Amino acid sequence: MKPVLVLHGPNLNLLGEREPGVYGSLSLDEINQRLVAHGQQLDLEVHTFQSNSEGALIDALHEARGWARGVVFNPAGYTHTSVALRDAVAAIGLPVVEVHLSNIDAREEFRQRSFVAAVCLGRIAGFGWRSYVLGLQALAGVLEDQISSS
Amino acid sequence: MKPVLVLHGPNLNLLGEREPGVYGSLSLDEINQRLVAHGQQLDLEVHTFQSNSEGALIDALHEARGWARGVVFNPAGYTHTSVALRDAVAAIGLPVVEVHLSNIDAREEFRQRSFVAAVCLGRIAGFGWRSYVLGLQALAGVLEDQISSS
Amino acid sequence: MKPVLVLHGPNLNLLGEREPGVYGSLSLDEINQRLVAHGQQLDLEVHTFQSNSEGALIDALHEARGWARGVVFNPAGYTHTSVALRDAVAAIGLPVVEVHLSNIDAREEFRQRSFVAAVCLGRIAGFGWRSYVLGLQALAGVLEDQISSS
Amino acid sequence: MKPVLVLHGPNLNLLGEREPGVYGSLSLDEINQRLVAHGQQLDLEVHTFQSNSEGALIDALHEARGWARGVVFNPAGYTHTSVALRDAVAAIGLPVVEVHLSNIDAREEFRQRSFVAAVCLGRIAGFGWRSYVLGLQALAGVLEDQISSS
Amino acid sequence: MKPVLVLHGPNLNLLGEREPGVYGSLSLDEINQRLVAHGQQLDLEVHTFQSNSEGALIDALHEARGWARGVVFNPAGYTHTSVALRDAVAAIGLPVVEVHLSNIDAREEFRQRSFVAAVCLGRIAGFGWRSYVLGLQALAGVLEDQISSS
Amino acid sequence: MKPVLVLHGPNLNLLGEREPGVYGSLSLDEINQRLVAHGQQLDLEVHTFQSNSEGALIDALHEARGWARGVVFNPAGYTHTSVALRDAVAAIGLPVVEVHLSNIDAREEFRQRSFVAAVCLGRIAGFGWRSYVLGLQALAGVLEDQISSS
Amino acid sequence: MKPVLVLHGPNLNLLGEREPGVYGSLSLDEINQRLVAHGQQLDLEVHTFQSNSEGALIDALHEARGWARGVVFNPAGYTHTSVALRDAVAAIGLPVVEVHLSNIDAREEFRQRSFVAAVCLGRIAGFGWRSYVLGLQALAGVLEDQISSS
Amino acid sequence: MKPVLVLHGPNLNLLGEREPGVYGSLSLDEINQRLVAHGQQLDLEVHTFQSNSEGALIDALHEARGWARGVVFNPAGYTHTSVALRDAVAAIGLPVVEVHLSNIDAREEFRQRSFVAAVCLGRIAGFGWRSYVLGLQALAGVLEDQISSS
Amino acid sequence: MKPVLVLHGPNLNLLGEREPGVYGSLSLDEINQRLVAHGQQLDLEVHTFQSNSEGALIDALHEARGWARGVVFNPAGYTHTSVALRDAVAAIGLPVVEVHLSNIDAREEFRQRSFVAAVCLGRIAGFGWRSYVLGLQALAGVLEDQISSS
Amino acid sequence: MKPVLVLHGPNLNLLGEREPGVYGSLSLDEINQRLVAHGQQLDLEVHTFQSNSEGALIDALHEARGWARGVVFNPAGYTHTSVALRDAVAAIGLPVVEVHLSNIDAREEFRQRSFVAAVCLGRIAGFGWRSYVLGLQALAGVLEDQISSS
Amino acid sequence: MKPVLVLHGPNLNLLGEREPGVYGSLSLDEINQRLVAHGQQLDLEVHTFQSNSEGALIDALHEARGWARGVVFNPAGYTHTSVALRDAVAAIGLPVVEVHLSNIDAREEFRQRSFVAAVCLGRIAGFGWRSYVLGLQALAGVLEDQISSS
Amino acid sequence: MKPVLVLHGPNLNLLGEREPGVYGSLSLDEINQRLVAHGQQLDLEVHTFQSNSEGALIDALHEARGWARGVVFNPAGYTHTSVALRDAVAAIGLPVVEVHLSNIDAREEFRQRSFVAAVCLGRIAGFGWRSYVLGLQALAGVLEDQISSS
Repeated sequence: MKPVLVLHGPNLNLLGEREPGVYGSLSLDEINQRLVAHGQQLDLEVHTFQSNSEGALIDALHEARGWARGVVFNPAGYTHTSVALRDAVAAIGLPVVEVHLSNIDAREEFRQRSFVAAVCLGRIAGFGWRSYVLGLQALAGVLEDQISSS
Repeated sequence: MKPVLVLHGPNLNLLGEREPGVYGSLSLDEINQRLVAHGQQLDLEVHTFQSNSEGALIDALHEARGWARGVVFNPAGYTHTSVALRDAVAAIGLPVVEVHLSNIDAREEFRQRSFVAAVCLGRIAGFGWRSYVLGLQALAGVLEDQISSS
Repeated sequence: MKPVLVLHGPNLNLLGEREPGVYGSLSLDEINQRLVAHGQQLDLEVHTFQSNSEGALIDALHEARGWARGVVFNPAGYTHTSVALRDAVAAIGLPVVEVHLSNIDAREEFRQRSFVAAVCLGRIAGFGWRSYVLGLQALAGVLEDQISSS
Repeated sequence: MKPVLVLHGPNLNLLGEREPGVYGSLSLDEINQRLVAHGQQLDLEVHTFQSNSEGALIDALHEARGWARGVVFNPAGYTHTSVALRDAVAAIGLPVVEVHLSNIDAREEFRQRSFVAAVCLGRIAGFGWRSYVLGLQALAGVLEDQISSS
Repeated sequence: MKPVLVLHGPNLNLLGEREPGVYGSLSLDEINQRLVAHGQQLDLEVHTFQSNSEGALIDALHEARGWARGVVFNPAGYTHTSVALRDAVAAIGLPVVEVHLSNIDAREEFRQRSFVAAVCLGRIAGFGWRSYVLGLQALAGVLEDQISSS
Repeated sequence: MKPVLVLHGPNLNLLGEREPGVYGSLSLDEINQRLVAHGQQLDLEVHTFQSNSEGALIDALHEARGWARGVVFNPAGYTHTSVALRDAVAAIGLPVVEVHLSNIDAREEFRQRSFVAAVCLGRIAGFGWRSYVLGLQALAGVLEDQISSS
Repeated sequence: MKPVLVLHGPNLNLLGEREPGVYGSLSLDEINQRLVAHGQQLDLEVHTFQSNSEGALIDALHEARGWARGVVFNPAGYTHTSVALRDAVAAIGLPVVEVHLSNIDAREEFRQRSFVAAVCLGRIAGFGWRSYVLGLQALAGVLEDQISSS
Repeated sequence: MKPVLVLHGPNLNLLGEREPGVYGSLSLDEINQRLVAHGQQLDLEVHTFQSNSEGALIDALHEARGWARGVVFNPAGYTHTSVALRDAVAAIGLPVVEVHLSNIDAREEFRQRSFVAAVCLGRIAGFGWRSYVLGLQALAGVLEDQISSS
Repeated sequence: MKPVLVLHGPNLNLLGEREPGVYGSLSLDEINQRLVAHGQQLDLEVHTFQSNSEGALIDALHEARGWARGVVFNPAGYTHTSVALRDAVAAIGLPVVEVHLSNIDAREEFRQRSFVAAVCLGRIAGFGWRSYVLGLQALAGVLEDQISSS
Repeated sequence: MKPVLVLHGPNLNLLGEREPGVYGSLSLDEINQRLVAHGQQLDLEVHTFQSNSEGALIDALHEARGWARGVVFNPAGYTHTSVALRDAVAAIGLPVVEVHLSNIDAREEFRQRSFVAAVCLGRIAGFGWRSYVLGLQALAGVLEDQISSS
Repeated sequence: MKPVLVLHGPNLNLLGEREPGVYGSLSLDEINQRLVAHGQQLDLEVHTFQSNSEGALIDALHEARGWARGVVFNPAGYTHTSVALRDAVAAIGLPVVEVHLSNIDAREEFRQRSFVAAVCLGRIAGFGWRSYVLGLQALAGVLEDQISSS
Repeated sequence: MKPVLVLHGPNLNLLGEREPGVYGSLSLDEINQRLVAHGQQLDLEVHTFQSNSEGALIDALHEARGWARGVVFNPAGYTHTSVALRDAVAAIGLPVVEVHLSNIDAREEFRQRSFVAAVCLGRIAGFGWRSYVLGLQALAGVLEDQISSS
């Protein structure tokens, strides 16, 4: 199985506990368990990490260079404000899929600017926890293409 | 099987013939065949339509109200300029998933404004023809939730 | 009776069927019948046309040069995006009254830019189907002035 | 008869005296007389007031809460600059129809921003003194709907 | 006791009568009475004035130079549009505390520009009628500092 | 002698009393006396008026139509915000010279937008009380030209 | 002779009939005849097409891939609003010369943004029907270079 | 006593040591002691925390959900740049009062945009260390209202 | 007599020859003669210079430091584009009065930005050749103040 | 033969020597020779001038009033920054055709603003040295029209 | 020797490992060794620190107040987004030289806004690892001036 | 020794004479002498040139192609306004280091846009005359790299 990182940005540790009407009733742990299970079907070994700290997320991306084949990344609030995370994604050279729980292009205007998008493969947004599953499927497809074209 | 519409916007009829390095070497017919096949696995009966005309796309959305359970829509160049298509999506009341072949948030600035996003469920962009497959999977998930919550 | 065109833009064919709380419960046919009746009181022979296609609307304006004395035009979603319709209105040289069902200046910011306004006589917006009636009354007044000043 | 206020903003006291080619040759008094007469046909008791003072216009709107069923308001130059008038219209809770002599969306860009539009029922612009008549007709229609739906 | 002016801008005379859910159920008179009482605890002799006229508010600020030690000022709708009030605050040389009933930075974008802020000591916003009480407390603190540093 | 109006906008009644380092040590009365004297040398009968109220300034402009040959106008803080004063200047048809004590183009950015400039003959700014004298001289020159060309 | 397409956008079918002072007195047919004649001198076989429909223009560009060596294109009002036409020009891979009757950079600001320019060879604007002739000459020059460099 | 959190953002640990002319001569410890004392008068048990790290501030807000009744928060430099802190404030569901030492609306333009304001109860700015005291008073008032309305 | 420089920017050498309806029928030489004569009445020895070259105008300002007491400067088209001229005016330390023939604040938007204004004493615009005379009068007044305050 | 000026702006003296892949391998002299030859076929006596100095270009335009019938002008880098050149073109009253080697509307955003376009007859851009030839042809056509309509 | 801090922002720990074509083949350790060596020649005792965390960088700046004479700071991605780092630089009162490996003014537009620049002594950008050496030389020069002027 | 050009833009000839508090007390000649001396230590033969004329600076850059190995360029006020200088720097193909005496990113907003930066190697700003020395050192480093990599 190919090891991949699912990286959760700020405030996502509160998932399931608050505003379930908006973000769903699943906790981050439950989502992570589902992602591990889905990963196995896709031949992906899913590792997960969450932090509220921009620096810790950068560190995690840097470390992923040593062991992961790709990243599914929900930068949450840092999507719209962090040039440093953009530079980190660009620097590590791994395929990164940007995911969001909500359809951020349909929300406040400041959520419609993404510093991260320009250095990711693509974006999936608006499908709740399923956005992550779709992100894993997209990543699996990309990794297959890499193999078949090598 | 639940009938769904996969709607292709302007210039997508040229897929596979030109700029295969950018958009892939599959023709629109080949993609459509794959989507029909993927749909069967997801219990979706996939119908496809393409037009270069804004008005014909609006007509197709209107007609889908009579027979379809949801839409996977690639508005292509009209994404960024058409208020009329936005109003059509809003008017028909069906779940619509916006898909794009390329990661439009990483391209020219004028491609980063979407009139359509605010009235769609979510957006999937950047994965070539797989964006459509992921769109069908997202739509299937949404339709399942509708059933289980009814 | 003076012949006039009432021209309906994109998505207006859905009137009455969807979102009646917003746009009223009258269908486009019922509105058109009322407009024909109101027209008779104003000595106007009302002809109506609807299309979702920008090109077909331009064609209709061009043709109106041959038979109509004026136009009541609801460009709907094309109001905010179509330079071509603006040029068509400017080219035909007929008096054109712009009407809208909703008070578009009170909605999203992108609905507050009109390419068409600068070449119309005036705008009436926010009164539902009555906006059309007010538009006919305005047009009748303008046509009377033409006669009295000739 | 239902009492209504026709409220005239700054500089409208000069009507008829200056720039008749632009604003028509009728004085404000003559227009007011016509509005009273038209009002009677519509079962509306028309009261009129003009002031060049933003504060006096706010006061007039406040007082109208005690006696009027609705307002036809031409805010003139204050349309584009007055948040205070916007708040006044929002506060009084009466139906207010915004009218303008000229087609302000076709004039200077600074005349295309309206602080007042968002809290009015609708806007009628571009038909000279007839804009007021159309405004009374629109208001009459709205008041009828209130009755029939209560 | 030190005399101070509490100055209320446009539409605040309607407090308590309309939209009590938003602005509270206290009338301006009741609020003024509370402010006079709170003032006594803070050794402040509170005088109050309200006007809907920009010019009258400027006059009141000018006159306050002759008798008041400071001002608690709610410019309401004029906050966002009045350079003249800004100049008045700057000219009189008294400490002025800007207060607002609602949290204006959380409302429409045009309410987030303040011409007055740059010449006031500070701003308190979002606590309903208590904003005025907090404003008096802030002013009392500032006046104490003036004494102790002189 | 030709009668002319020198019109002073908001806060100018404080001249000489506050910030003499910025605005000079002359009071408005002293300036007015000098303007009357200078006017006599230029064959101009100078009448002066000051108000802090936008509405009162509009009224004064309207009335000047009945007796004055021209206006020297310092709109002060209203320069940058008042469409209504612009419309008043445009409506009265008299030659109006815009004057400012300070060099407003060298101050805050919001003071660099003038709604009034486009309908005035010209602008003189930055010379303290002498700006008014230069304004009278400019107006005298313009009135001479009118005579010689008639 | 090398076959080329001259493609006319919306409202150009009215040429010669209306506003001859602006757009000249030649009809579109007469212009087309002149272009065919000029083409022969340049060894170009000129085919012409006009449509008011954005979709039909896209179709025409797509079809030109099968038979034409280049395109002279006047997108008229769609110049400023159509991303779909831009994508069509980019997709077909033919040399495209953009032409305009009027000098659009000297007109309204919204006419100064072109979505199409970035994917065309060059632009010729401002010379009436001669713009087309110059466009054919430019295209002939480009086609010669292709031959001489192959 | 009701437990509340006073949360200090970046650079506030330097208070009193540097630029005392701007920020006052009290150290953060001294201010905290005063806040604890003031809290006791208001029946509030004040806990304080400072960090220069955006992530640590988010963590502190998350943890406050478990024990605090409300928060007085000075986000300092993060006010203007952090969507993640905004999301944290929105997520925890506690009443949060935004405070600032200086009158940030009177400083650089980039300090006039607040991502945090829209999800706080209100803002108090410009009164030095007293801004915190006023913030505690505001919070105490809000908590009283909660009790009296329950 | 005090020596002063009257400095004319680009295209002013054409004065009187072209567009006399706009810029008057006096040639630059005739204007310069009038300015010398007016200067004598004001005890000013007027020297004039014109150049179409930005560099030559900078040189002239630099040299004026050695002999002139002040400058009346019409930067014409460079007003809106030259940071270098701004820096030159700031560097020489002489009082500089900005003059313009036309009322530039009433013309195209790009003429409403002045790089030069912020470092000049004041601006006089809109009075044709009389703007220069008013500029000399303004300069004379400023030089008198310097003497009386020294 | 009618004498005309071909005017080359800054950096064009380097043509052919540098970046031949972009600007072609012809030197400015070689291009000028071709233009003289083409001119003879068009009955135009072509005179050429190049300068890197904005002032010298203005001088050349002024002098052309005395001898030339029209101008083909490539303002190069000054296109986007020079109001003075715009004023010069407007002042001389000759027909001026704007040409550019590259398709400037397809390059950096700052190259898409032209101060010169609004006062030229038209623009030809994107055809390398052939842009000049097309410019001469356009000018010849315009001069013919002048004759035939006189 | 004078102790100084060389502070490296986010992602700089990856130097030399990735994208050597862009950022050079030296690792951060190798660069640091060179800086220590260069420092000795300049009588500077160079201490280095790197962190991906905004908070840790702020902490490092705060601590430098206790021991360092100046700072050479590469804020990397935080340059463009961090008001908190700006406030930290302003608060510590040490001379800070801003350095960048690449010429950030020549890159994406969002990299052309620096929150940090306004509170630094100067900026050096575009010379790879030599930017740091130049930064040490600049700092050494500034420290010499301090001594010689004391 | 390698010959290099140090090129000084407008107003720098006044260095040392005026505003020594801002720009230092060294004259341009004294700075040039220091640069020649520093150059010798770096094996650079330093030639210097200053002009206030944009055209003369372009000429100097063009000529440097024939003899210089690189340029240290202070474009001063032209930095922010000259596309022509940008094109000149791009055309000559020499390494160019941009230097500024002051930290322009910390000054007025219009000084924060540089047309020149995008075509220079890097920028050094804020260190007074030492900016030039650092510029020479940067250039020397670049030239060494060219040798070692050839």
